[in-house]
Amino acid sequence: HNKYTLNIIPGDGIGKEVVPVSLKVLEKLSEKFDFQLKFKFFDYSCDYYLKHGAMMDKDGMKKLADCDAILLGAVGMPNVPDHISLWGLLIPIRRAFDQYVNLRPVKSLKGINGVLKEKKNIDYLIVRENSEGEYSDLGGIIYPDTENEMVIQHSVFSKKGTERIVKYAFELAHHRKKTLTSATKSNGIIHSMIFWDNIFENISKQNPKVITSKFHIDILCAQVVKNPDWFDVIVASNLFGDILSDLGPVCTGGMGIAPSANLNPEGKFPSMFEPVHGSAPDIYGKNIANPIATIWSCVMMLEYLGEKEAAAHLFACIEKITESTKTTPDLGGSLTTTQVGESIIELL
Amino acid sequence: HNKYTLNIIPGDGIGKEVVPVSLKVLEKLSEKFDFQLKFKFFDYSCDYYLKHGAMMDKDGMKKLADCDAILLGAVGMPNVPDHISLWGLLIPIRRAFDQYVNLRPVKSLKGINGVLKEKKNIDYLIVRENSEGEYSDLGGIIYPDTENEMVIQHSVFSKKGTERIVKYAFELAHHRKKTLTSATKSNGIIHSMIFWDNIFENISKQNPKVITSKFHIDILCAQVVKNPDWFDVIVASNLFGDILSDLGPVCTGGMGIAPSANLNPEGKFPSMFEPVHGSAPDIYGKNIANPIATIWSCVMMLEYLGEKEAAAHLFACIEKITESTKTTPDLGGSLTTTQVGESIIELL
Ligand SMILES: CC(C)[C@H](C(=O)O)[C@@H](O)C(=O)O
Ligand SMILES: CC(C)[C@H](C(=O)O)[C@@H](O)C(=O)O
Repeated sequence: HNKYTLNIIPGDGIGKEVVPVSLKVLEKLSEKFDFQLKFKFFDYSCDYYLKHGAMMDKDGMKKLADCDAILLGAVGMPNVPDHISLWGLLIPIRRAFDQYVNLRPVKSLKGINGVLKEKKNIDYLIVRENSEGEYSDLGGIIYPDTENEMVIQHSVFSKKGTERIVKYAFELAHHRKKTLTSATKSNGIIHSMIFWDNIFENISKQNPKVITSKFHIDILCAQVVKNPDWFDVIVASNLFGDILSDLGPVCTGGMGIAPSANLNPEGKFPSMFEPVHGSAPDIYGKNIANPIATIWSCVMMLEYLGEKEAAAHLFACIEKITESTKTTPDLGGSLTTTQVGESIIELL
Repeated sequence: HNKYTLNIIPGDGIGKEVVPVSLKVLEKLSEKFDFQLKFKFFDYSCDYYLKHGAMMDKDGMKKLADCDAILLGAVGMPNVPDHISLWGLLIPIRRAFDQYVNLRPVKSLKGINGVLKEKKNIDYLIVRENSEGEYSDLGGIIYPDTENEMVIQHSVFSKKGTERIVKYAFELAHHRKKTLTSATKSNGIIHSMIFWDNIFENISKQNPKVITSKFHIDILCAQVVKNPDWFDVIVASNLFGDILSDLGPVCTGGMGIAPSANLNPEGKFPSMFEPVHGSAPDIYGKNIANPIATIWSCVMMLEYLGEKEAAAHLFACIEKITESTKTTPDLGGSLTTTQVGESIIELL
C-alpha cells in the first residue's frame, strides 16, 4: 500500500486547533482506505518567531521540501507584523516551491446556505495565479519623510507566468463544463491587464472547445454574488483571485468552509494545502473554529496524492455533517471544533 | 435666484437614454425651487471618435472646464477599444480636473432590496481615491514577442495624494457616525499598502474622535456583503474603491441605482457627476435602463451646488418611486426609462 510523508505546519491561532482535528480524521481515513501517512511536525509560527527571531530555521525550506505534501493551518498574529510572519513563512513557501496555482473551489454544500435569499447551485473553481502579479515587493520610496514622499509599487506579469496559469485553467475547463471566465481590469488604465487579456485570447484560440468570457474585476465581484451559478472556472491574477476567493464563500457558507490548494503542478516541489481563512485570533482558544475548511483542504490533498476514493468518501462525510446540525456555531450548530472532527470520524 | 451652467456629456449607450430623462427632471425641479439651469451639450463619445478620430476635440478639456458642474452618462462601446474611449474621455476628465475624490453612496432605498436574505439597514459612503494608485499607465514591457516577455506596471501612491483622500474621509466621518474603515492589503507583499496604512494611522491620530478600523480588501469584500450594516464611511484606493462600489449596490438593489460624484473639493476645477454603471450595450436602445442612478447623481450634484432643499426633495421622490411599482425591469417593474422619469416629474 501507498505511503505518504506529510509536512505539517499548524502555524498560528486557530490553525493550531483545526489542524490536529484534521489529522485525526486523516489517520482514521488511512486505515479504512489502506494507505499510510507519516506526519512530520514543524512549529514555524509567530511563537517560533518570538523565540528565535525568524519564522523558520535557516534550512527550514530545505526540510519542508522533503515530503509528499504540506498541510498548513494559518499564519499571523497581532503581536507580529504581517510583513514578518506572512512574508517569512506563507509567501516564501508558495514562491520557493513554485506553487503557481492556487486552486480555490467555491461550492454549495448540502444543508448550508450563504447570505443569499435565493438558493443557487454554486459550483465553481477559482484558479488564482500564486507567484507574481500584484504581489510584489519591487519598487520603493522617493523623497522619504518629506511632503513629496511617494511610493512606487511594481506589479510583474511575465509571459511564462501568465501563460502557465491560463493554460492550467483551460485544462481544468476541459475536464468540467468547458467554460472559462477571465478576471481583468483592462478598461482602467492598468496596462498589465491588457497583457493578461492578450495572453488569455491567444491561449483561447488553441482551445476552441472552451467557451470563454471576460469580466472586469469590479463587475465580476458583483456577479459572483448576484449570479454565482453563471460560473464554472474563473482564472484570475494573484490579487483578483485573492479577493474573489473570500467573496465566493460568503454565498455558500462562509470562510469556515473554504479550502485551497497551492499547487506546483509539475511536482518538482511539494504542494501545500491550507484553509483560505486566517488565524482568527478573536476566536482562537475557544475550540469553536470550523475545521471543515481544513478537512476539505485535506480532500484536495488526497486527490492530489492520487487517493481519489478516500477523497470522495471524506467529501461525502463533510456533506453529511453540513446537512446535519453537527456543526460549529458559524454554521448554526453548537459543536466544538473537536466534536465536529469526532462526528466526521464516526461517519468514516 | 441662482443660475448654474452644466456641461452635459450623454456619452455612449444607455448614457444617451438616462441623461435626457434626468435633465427633464432637473428642469422641472429648477422651476419648483426657483433656480436656473443652462445645459451645454457635448457629443463626445465613441460615435464622435469614429467620426473624428478622437474622443473629444482638441480644446475639449478647455471647453468642459467652463461650467459649474459636469453631468456624464457613460463612456465605452464594443466597437472602440476601452483604452481609447475611457482613457480618451472619462479618465482625462477625472485627472485633469483633479477630481481626486470619487464619492459613492451605498444605501438601501425604500421598497427595494438587493440579493441578501436578511434585510439590513445599509447606509455607507465609499470614498474612493480617484487620481493615482493602481490606475497608472507607467511601466512597460521588456523582451517583447519573446518567451521572456514581461510587463511591469507601476502603482503610484504619493503622500499628498493619499493624505488628501484620507483627510477628506475623516472630515466626512466627523459629519456622520464618526467611524471610518480603511481598505488595505498590507498583509500581502504589496508594500504600497503599508505606506497607505501609515498615512491612515497618522491622520487618525489627528482625529481622535473618529473610531477607525482597517480591513484587508479580500475580507472587506466579504464583509460588505455579509455585514453591510457594519460600515459608515470606507476610504479606499482607486482599484479597491472601484471594486467595492460595484459590490455594494448588489446588496441594495443593483447597478441601476448606484450614483457617484467625482469631486474636486477645492472647486478649482469642475466636479463631475455620473452613474456608476457603464454604457450597457446589451440593453441600449430598448428604453429600459434605470435612470435612477443618474437622477441620484443629480441629487449629489445639487447638494454640491448648494441647492440642498431641491436635492432632498428629489431624493424623496426617488424613494417614492422605488417604494411603488413604477420602476424599470431591473427593480421588478415594467416601466420604460422615460416613464420612470415622467413618474418622478409628476411627484415633484
Ligand atoms: C470604466 C472604468 C474605467 C471605471 C473605473 O474603473 O473607474 C468604472 O469601472 C468606474 O467605476 O467608474
Ligand atoms: C494572508 C495573505 C497574505 C493571503 C493572501 O493574500 O494570499 C490570504 O489572504 C490568502 O488568501 O491566502
